Amino acid sequence: MGIEVIDLKNKPCVLSYAAVAGKKEANGPLKDLFDIINLDTSMGQDSWEKAESKFQQAAIEKAIEKGSLTAQDVDLIFAGDLLAQCAGSSFCIRDFGIPYAGVYGACSTMALSLIMASMSVNAGYSHYAAAATSSHFCSAEKQFRKPLEYGGQRPPAAQWTVTGSACAIMSDKDKKDMPHVEKVIFGKIRDLGITDENNMGAAMAPAASETIARFLKATGTAPEDYDIILTGDLGAVGSRLLTQLLQKEHNIDISSVHKDCGLMIYHLDEQDVNSGGSGCGCSGVVLCSKILNELADGTLNKVLFVATGALLSQTTSLQGESVPGIAHGVLITGGKK
Amino acid sequence: MGIEVIDLKNKPCVLSYAAVAGKKEANGPLKDLFDIINLDTSMGQDSWEKAESKFQQAAIEKAIEKGSLTAQDVDLIFAGDLLAQCAGSSFCIRDFGIPYAGVYGACSTMALSLIMASMSVNAGYSHYAAAATSSHFCSAEKQFRKPLEYGGQRPPAAQWTVTGSACAIMSDKDKKDMPHVEKVIFGKIRDLGITDENNMGAAMAPAASETIARFLKATGTAPEDYDIILTGDLGAVGSRLLTQLLQKEHNIDISSVHKDCGLMIYHLDEQDVNSGGSGCGCSGVVLCSKILNELADGTLNKVLFVATGALLSQTTSLQGESVPGIAHGVLITGGKK
Repeated sequence: MGIEVIDLKNKPCVLSYAAVAGKKEANGPLKDLFDIINLDTSMGQDSWEKAESKFQQAAIEKAIEKGSLTAQDVDLIFAGDLLAQCAGSSFCIRDFGIPYAGVYGACSTMALSLIMASMSVNAGYSHYAAAATSSHFCSAEKQFRKPLEYGGQRPPAAQWTVTGSACAIMSDKDKKDMPHVEKVIFGKIRDLGITDENNMGAAMAPAASETIARFLKATGTAPEDYDIILTGDLGAVGSRLLTQLLQKEHNIDISSVHKDCGLMIYHLDEQDVNSGGSGCGCSGVVLCSKILNELADGTLNKVLFVATGALLSQTTSLQGESVPGIAHGVLITGGKK
Repeated sequence: MGIEVIDLKNKPCVLSYAAVAGKKEANGPLKDLFDIINLDTSMGQDSWEKAESKFQQAAIEKAIEKGSLTAQDVDLIFAGDLLAQCAGSSFCIRDFGIPYAGVYGACSTMALSLIMASMSVNAGYSHYAAAATSSHFCSAEKQFRKPLEYGGQRPPAAQWTVTGSACAIMSDKDKKDMPHVEKVIFGKIRDLGITDENNMGAAMAPAASETIARFLKATGTAPEDYDIILTGDLGAVGSRLLTQLLQKEHNIDISSVHKDCGLMIYHLDEQDVNSGGSGCGCSGVVLCSKILNELADGTLNKVLFVATGALLSQTTSLQGESVPGIAHGVLITGGKK
């Protein structure tokens, strides 16, 4: 029998975190919760890829600053993003001089990097380990779909890639009120044959269903044991599919505790984002603002964060391949305990 | 003071490993050491990307078989490759049902995935954790350089991307004679401004120098304490640069113990590979054949494996960016002790 859920017995502490968001995100319901808002999403750079790197740089710098650390104090950073060869991360982190482990989980990267950082600190491999990710609407659209200038129509199931970056720093020392990571679970890839590059929610929902069901079963818990089961960027279409799948495949009803970062970051009815937000930055900036804030101030006590990723590439899409989905999970508990 | 070198006190064991190689590799000096040779490097697929996935599938299956395991026994697999969004790995691993953590280290991925798997097993997070990677000459050339049909000239510093895949399975149970992973070190990104996509060796050598010097300093050891300091794919140009940099920057002479997988996999004077082999598969198949064989049979006892990666993307190259390099290190010791 394999190890499904990994117990982090030392409960590593979230020392600090930061969320950096763009203009559209600043018009959404979480606008007052971001650490930095960049109304010029080009960041003064001459490419969207470089702009994305600047977003990630700002998030890492801010998290380090909020943790009263310097870059030299951080033993290790786990980071990745949506760009080919995770270029958004590499080209930002080269300037920090922090040992770097690249991770690839598509839009699930905030969970994947947080898992890795938490595991590293829990095992004593690092005193301080950072987890970071980013996405940018403009770099993502041009890579995965159409050049922005093409002005393509966006179908109802399409989501809007969040322009933003987040970073959390895990520590082996407790800090008053700060949340802890208690358990983690790695996702299995599920692919139910979705080939529509404008319906990522449907491609990722089956993986989220599998991870959530496996986590609940392995821990002997029920949805009601959590304040929130928080998916990353399923959006309206994917969220509906997730609740249906969990009901049908596992007879589990999460409807009373389920929230989705993709449905929290924008005003869906006003901001022309169709099915909601998406991208690595989506779950990143929602987690590293509202959710961790509320875990720190005692509003929330137990959040199962399940970020979802669609592991497609531009090439696999053009070759007609379906979209494999994955969902990694992190149990984060409040700091008051 | 940060943690530079991570000690794996439980010395996780390499339970099994496998190397799958293509036709050109089968004409090289290691031809008798590969587990599987595929003379048809298309693997019967209709794209080079799918062919690469088939190589990786074969390596993972073979390593599982050689470990007398089934896929269900493997708690976790760390894998990545050179393709955008690590598609070579995702599209192969979706069929195994093994929890999957994607890693991105470019050509350093064999070391990065092996580090992660070893850390996971050492901490008790997994009983069996796999590390895998792959590369394919045809998928890499079309992505990073020119379409094959273009027939571009290859300059002297160019290297030949290895068509191959490797997988190693780490275990928390000892197996007679099998090697162990004792220490690991994560690389820092170094970028000395190389912009030539045909000179990856020079782009990666500075990172290798940094990692090797930092490892030796932190462990209080000298090059002579190792049977081999084995770099991944620096090739002839990069290897020369590495020995010069280590001498100049750190007054360290590794010339008596340095070997490079890129110089071991082909007959450089006969196989038209210019500066040598490269790609994730290069260090993967050399490590998971000759090197681990010799650590198991007692020919070698202490190998510092430092795989190097060039963290460029097609987009960053076209935008004129320089190439950030990284090098992750693994201390592997013999099984006889």
